[in-house]
Amino acid sequence: MAIIVQKYGGTSVGSLDRIRNVASRIKKLKDEGNSVVAVVSAMGGVTDKLLGMANELTSEPQERELDVLLSTGEQQSIALVCMALKEIGVEAVSVTGRQAGIKTLGSHTRGRINEIDPTLMNQYLAEGKVIICAGFQGLREDGMIHTLGRGGSDLTAIAVASAIKADLCQILTDVDGVYTTDPRVVKNARKLPEISYDEMLEMASSGSKVMQSRSVEFAKKYGVIFEVRSSLNDNPGTLVTEEHDDMESVVIRGVSIERSQARITITGIPDEPGMSARILRCIADTETNIDMIVSNIAHDGLARHSFTMHSNDLGKLQAALKPLINELSDCANILTEAGIAKLSCVGIGMRSHSGVAAKMFEALGEAGINIGIITTSEIKIAVTMDEDNIEEATRVVHEAFNLDKAPVQDS
Amino acid sequence: MAIIVQKYGGTSVGSLDRIRNVASRIKKLKDEGNSVVAVVSAMGGVTDKLLGMANELTSEPQERELDVLLSTGEQQSIALVCMALKEIGVEAVSVTGRQAGIKTLGSHTRGRINEIDPTLMNQYLAEGKVIICAGFQGLREDGMIHTLGRGGSDLTAIAVASAIKADLCQILTDVDGVYTTDPRVVKNARKLPEISYDEMLEMASSGSKVMQSRSVEFAKKYGVIFEVRSSLNDNPGTLVTEEHDDMESVVIRGVSIERSQARITITGIPDEPGMSARILRCIADTETNIDMIVSNIAHDGLARHSFTMHSNDLGKLQAALKPLINELSDCANILTEAGIAKLSCVGIGMRSHSGVAAKMFEALGEAGINIGIITTSEIKIAVTMDEDNIEEATRVVHEAFNLDKAPVQDS
Repeated sequence: MAIIVQKYGGTSVGSLDRIRNVASRIKKLKDEGNSVVAVVSAMGGVTDKLLGMANELTSEPQERELDVLLSTGEQQSIALVCMALKEIGVEAVSVTGRQAGIKTLGSHTRGRINEIDPTLMNQYLAEGKVIICAGFQGLREDGMIHTLGRGGSDLTAIAVASAIKADLCQILTDVDGVYTTDPRVVKNARKLPEISYDEMLEMASSGSKVMQSRSVEFAKKYGVIFEVRSSLNDNPGTLVTEEHDDMESVVIRGVSIERSQARITITGIPDEPGMSARILRCIADTETNIDMIVSNIAHDGLARHSFTMHSNDLGKLQAALKPLINELSDCANILTEAGIAKLSCVGIGMRSHSGVAAKMFEALGEAGINIGIITTSEIKIAVTMDEDNIEEATRVVHEAFNLDKAPVQDS
Repeated sequence: MAIIVQKYGGTSVGSLDRIRNVASRIKKLKDEGNSVVAVVSAMGGVTDKLLGMANELTSEPQERELDVLLSTGEQQSIALVCMALKEIGVEAVSVTGRQAGIKTLGSHTRGRINEIDPTLMNQYLAEGKVIICAGFQGLREDGMIHTLGRGGSDLTAIAVASAIKADLCQILTDVDGVYTTDPRVVKNARKLPEISYDEMLEMASSGSKVMQSRSVEFAKKYGVIFEVRSSLNDNPGTLVTEEHDDMESVVIRGVSIERSQARITITGIPDEPGMSARILRCIADTETNIDMIVSNIAHDGLARHSFTMHSNDLGKLQAALKPLINELSDCANILTEAGIAKLSCVGIGMRSHSGVAAKMFEALGEAGINIGIITTSEIKIAVTMDEDNIEEATRVVHEAFNLDKAPVQDS
């Protein structure tokens, strides 16, 4: 008998019919002899409706009260799922974040899980009951209701799996798993049977929005192996796990793409200490996320800095940088480029294989695709290009590394 | 500076506009220098919507899960009222039943308040904050979410007022206060400036549905004086309080009426021990509430029992009694009468004044109104009559006791 933690998102419990579907999936697992804890989100649309009311009442709702308000969405879901389970003869009990013993730290609406006291959950499991646990919420040290922010329900599931020493944690979502690349772009993209935490993190930060990075980081930290799979069918998904030796035989695990990017390049900055810091501080003060950062010194001793960001943020950022640049140097200049996209090759195999970048750039060159900025990490190579080329680029890189074929293991 | 507890029902917070209205009422009290705790119900319609979903999922939702589900309604209200208060510059914090320290006993959906630990509320009050407290809910000893059943928000307000030693507790509702009788029936019905707990209890059980008896009983037990007043205007309401000497000078405080009643009379029952018990047990097993009970022995030694009930329950009760009656005696018989109504005169002054019943029956007799069953308590005389006569009867009794005129105090 295994202990299984499942997480169902807002779409999976978005109507009473879907709640019934979730209940029958849980019943199946339970009937097979497993202990089941299901973490559920608010019914799709509920959170937005509550937020809409809050914003209608005041332009800046108190974060403490947003936590009180929004946490009701999950509390409704857990009760309703338990009722659907009763109807099909499964004994289930709901637990709120507080009852699940989820203790949090941090400011309101952005809680971090500090620890979990699973006493009550373990007692219910010992009694043979299915547990339906509210995602996205916990209790702060001072007794306040606390929500966990974006991706909070995934985080709840992984933390609960760790606390009750689950044998398996399943993140059930509206995709079948993690693919070598976006199947809408490359028809023969292949679902990965497994992927390492680090690869998943790089994929997540490169446009594959299956999960928020924080949940993957938490899973890595506590060694929670989890599976991403569909809540709509029974296909096996993708196991996200510690890396093992076999994994290194695959050079590239996947190719992720991010569209609607833009670039700002600042030229003619004197190469003096503190210059980069002033520019980055100016960007940080706009609360804009920048992605790639490349700096270089030209032969004339003047520095050149490039950043990429979502194109929605380009105007705001350019406006913020303008007075600073004028102040820094007479010959400084801001260049911008919108309509670009980013392609990233990710794989822990890169560490032990050479020539990965060469192979990637050759493939792009043969297809006549120009690349812009290049950045690398130990397990990722990312390049920008004209957005018009991103689909073709993804296809040629995917093919160059034979990602449509299951890898042959070294032995 | 006074400490004031207010209770706003579901209608008073039934829309965002009404929530804004509640916020401005609270601000006014606060600006006058008072400490304010407002107990609020779920927004009108929310509880019914949640119950509808529950009943769609299963015919008998678990009561534990109903508590988890329904308590979210009040939790949403408290957050929204705090946001509306922020918008008009009032610092407010919400507290759930748990955070208000409301500790309950009893089975799910029917909680009783056992005690209140007001530590957190007192701390917020000391910090000058307005507190918005969820009605209808508490935390059970075992850590479970617990709702208080019908009238639960009134009960919360009265219990909170007791716990924080409030100077005043206001139950804000959609009526202006407690009237000498239903103003829709008697045009010159008068709003009572005050009424004793016992009178209020008798009025509540006689058709004046301003409040549930349990809240009045709780207030009486803990000596909480409260005012019933309108949430829509600033008119003074009715103070419900301990009785004092002046009160006895008023013979009749009010006349309450209850329509759609029915009567069952069982005749020809042998006058033997245990007979009444068997009949009442049979009624109790149908889970029907009966109201008046009258028994008598005829000269032939056979007993005659009459009961009244809501006419909706007549059929069920007659069917349940039929086999028992046949078993008890060959000459027993069941007679029924629907289309009757009950009129009750209530007043603690009855204790010290004689001739009250005579005056009441004379008034009815002069109007040519026949009366059926008569029951009395120390402070109430109740009679049944044809429902067609109830409005005329109310008018003549109201007039006979001069209820339209403010009483002249004995001195």
